[in-house]
Amino acid sequence: MCGVAAGQNAAGAAAHDYTAARQPELLKQFEEFVAIPDVAADPAGLRRNAEFLLGQLEQRGVQAELLTAPGLPGATPPVVYGELKTPGATRTIVFYAHYDGQPVTASEWTNGAPFTPEVKVVDGEQRVYGRATGDDKAAIFAQLTALSALQAAKVGLKANIRFVWEGEEEAGSAHLEKILDAHKELIGGDVWLVCDGPVDQTRRQALIFGARGDAHVQITVYGPDRGLHSGHYGNWAPNPAMMMAQLLAGMKDVQGRVTIPHFYDGIKPLGPVEVAALKAAPRNDEMLKQEFGIGATMGGGRALLELINEPSLEVAGIAAGQTGAHATNTIVATAVANLDLRLVVGIDATVQQQRVLAYIRSQGYFVTSAEPRREELLSHAKVARVEMPAGENASRTPMDLPIAAEIIRTIESVRGKTVLLPTSGGTVPLEAMERASGAPTVSVPIANHDDNQHAANENLRLKNLWDGVETMAALMAMP
Amino acid sequence: MCGVAAGQNAAGAAAHDYTAARQPELLKQFEEFVAIPDVAADPAGLRRNAEFLLGQLEQRGVQAELLTAPGLPGATPPVVYGELKTPGATRTIVFYAHYDGQPVTASEWTNGAPFTPEVKVVDGEQRVYGRATGDDKAAIFAQLTALSALQAAKVGLKANIRFVWEGEEEAGSAHLEKILDAHKELIGGDVWLVCDGPVDQTRRQALIFGARGDAHVQITVYGPDRGLHSGHYGNWAPNPAMMMAQLLAGMKDVQGRVTIPHFYDGIKPLGPVEVAALKAAPRNDEMLKQEFGIGATMGGGRALLELINEPSLEVAGIAAGQTGAHATNTIVATAVANLDLRLVVGIDATVQQQRVLAYIRSQGYFVTSAEPRREELLSHAKVARVEMPAGENASRTPMDLPIAAEIIRTIESVRGKTVLLPTSGGTVPLEAMERASGAPTVSVPIANHDDNQHAANENLRLKNLWDGVETMAALMAMP
Repeated sequence: MCGVAAGQNAAGAAAHDYTAARQPELLKQFEEFVAIPDVAADPAGLRRNAEFLLGQLEQRGVQAELLTAPGLPGATPPVVYGELKTPGATRTIVFYAHYDGQPVTASEWTNGAPFTPEVKVVDGEQRVYGRATGDDKAAIFAQLTALSALQAAKVGLKANIRFVWEGEEEAGSAHLEKILDAHKELIGGDVWLVCDGPVDQTRRQALIFGARGDAHVQITVYGPDRGLHSGHYGNWAPNPAMMMAQLLAGMKDVQGRVTIPHFYDGIKPLGPVEVAALKAAPRNDEMLKQEFGIGATMGGGRALLELINEPSLEVAGIAAGQTGAHATNTIVATAVANLDLRLVVGIDATVQQQRVLAYIRSQGYFVTSAEPRREELLSHAKVARVEMPAGENASRTPMDLPIAAEIIRTIESVRGKTVLLPTSGGTVPLEAMERASGAPTVSVPIANHDDNQHAANENLRLKNLWDGVETMAALMAMP
Repeated sequence: MCGVAAGQNAAGAAAHDYTAARQPELLKQFEEFVAIPDVAADPAGLRRNAEFLLGQLEQRGVQAELLTAPGLPGATPPVVYGELKTPGATRTIVFYAHYDGQPVTASEWTNGAPFTPEVKVVDGEQRVYGRATGDDKAAIFAQLTALSALQAAKVGLKANIRFVWEGEEEAGSAHLEKILDAHKELIGGDVWLVCDGPVDQTRRQALIFGARGDAHVQITVYGPDRGLHSGHYGNWAPNPAMMMAQLLAGMKDVQGRVTIPHFYDGIKPLGPVEVAALKAAPRNDEMLKQEFGIGATMGGGRALLELINEPSLEVAGIAAGQTGAHATNTIVATAVANLDLRLVVGIDATVQQQRVLAYIRSQGYFVTSAEPRREELLSHAKVARVEMPAGENASRTPMDLPIAAEIIRTIESVRGKTVLLPTSGGTVPLEAMERASGAPTVSVPIANHDDNQHAANENLRLKNLWDGVETMAALMAMP
């Protein structure tokens, strides 16, 4: 299908021929990019990524610079910015992606080295493993390679092209809007193409018109001020591990419906175009259950695509004491849980965090935002420290904008029938982008859905990379 | 009090004078003993402990050897055995202690090195920090030093003395009974003095006539077969962290009462002597709440001493995903919890584990004992792996045995008024000892209660060590 479809689009065809002739060389270049560590805990590594990308843009004749804003912490990863002006262009298209990756726990990776990329064959197809391969270095690399392909084949651009690659997406894009606001003249455009996230599970190209928001709540509950012997104090000392279990358990019913009061209040319903698109999209639930080895899903049998349009609460982690060979007979001093709240349009991040906080209070907890003092611990039966870093709200672009139709047509000319979705599961700071740039956003992901994004052994199916180069080339050559 | 009391007992006085003249030198020797790593994960370290102790006994003229049994795994830590025969003795007193310590997580220790002992002053008193300082190397060292003191002062023994020091207590004494059974002629006696655990929280010497039993249940619950992005799959994928929270939460009410059916069935009630002793024992609850910074206790206000005579269920650890700086937006594949079940006389370890297992099943779980197969995961909504290693039953010696009265009198002549308790919170394999030796057991702990036993920063208050030497000397010189 790809060869045929690419034939209908000169830019796509040029990209196809370009990558087909250079796969080993391009893969090597991609691996060099992945090998530069890109986690928030390593600002020097992020800086190296930014400088590497600056060089890549300049090599391709792109006017490029690293953007920051006054008053930011010195270690803030810059936005890598690039611009290609096209004489006579009437439109400006902005390509967004991010060069930072999720935190890593090296011991969880099969090769123990998230930044030592490795190619493996899975079900007869090549994949490259490493942090940020799928999320989101693939998109940046596809854009760079698409540009090389268009230049090699001398396919001219029709619109102005801008690149905005941030380095804090996985850390909540805390400074993105400030940086964009400080450079408003550079980052405006007719549309922001947000190249992040995975394509549909059927491997069909997805086009997504919004994204879930995201906010975290970290809870620490307190028992004795030191670990106590569970024989000498069991039955008597409050056990924070059990307190945490009871606190979390009350947040959802067994079907996964959140029982925190008002949790679903305010959801802005989908419009008729979005409802129709959702109906037309493939139902992959049974396939995914097989793929992930799951016997049953949450949500009382409702479809994944439907559930993504509702807010969610997931326990991302619980840490209390030790298990396995390290288990000791101890009633521990604290238990910590990290909650991931996904948001949809109509529910503000802060409001949702406050609902969780109110629930914790309703369970009898005295709540602090800092480490509780001894007097606070002594004077309350239950004490919780609740940390609520700033979140990101959800966003949705109407599917029936004129430019949306043009993007759909362009992509379908290279990649065949697309899957149109109102909401991406992954959170990208669409709202901040739209506020700063005044442009609508449309997400054009290229990674495979089964890329272990955010987890250990993240990977990218190479076919997705080559297809992504074609998609990006076609979008760059759009009028 | 100590000087006066010791005056009533020649052996105690000899021990007091001996340690008073040599504290720095003895402390150094104790630190050398603590510095030999003694965790189950390090069989070579345990072996070094055993050989060290063999040498210590031999230096003091004790007929000593390392005991094992046919058919045990090669790495099984031996029992260090010693015997001092006294011509004309009519009684044999056996001193039990253990040289192994709880597992360590070095990063949790203030100095990062559990086997590099350090002396610190706490509330004006010296303590030595290191794994096994309190539990239970203090008891062994006190026995060795008591013997030196008696020999130096030429205080003659009246009874035969035997030492049985095991190396697997913290690992559940899996092979102790086999080893004892293989050497029945060596280990019999009129009483086993079990020197383990802490004295009363008031710092008064405790004498304990039984111990809680102990059994573990480790539960693993399963979600997707890999970590999934909580944005793309939140609301839909089963989340084992939440499943675990819900499973555990249902095991206890908010007062800490276990709600698993039949959990309290079969408890053998205390006799009138034990009930009276319990009534006479100090109520330390308010002091302990202050000490541990606790605002409220479990058990609906009932006293710790009372609650120790009931079975308990404590969550020793929960591990699921990551928290803090390592938190990722992932629905993880598995969650693990380790439960510590304490037992009292009348409730068998296996029976109690089966009650927990039945409860897990009653919550809709398909249960396996090994890693579940893919077909099992796909064909059940909820799957749990439940591991139940062999436990130890509780045990209780009647407080009104004639030899018990003699032990109480001897100890009170050195240490003043004792606290008599029917049940120790800590688990020692009393039942196995009694079966193998045919002798009743009485526990004579010497460590401070606030020794962080089983946790990080375990320590021994030095005053407890010197007092312990006096106590051991008096017991060794008993008729």
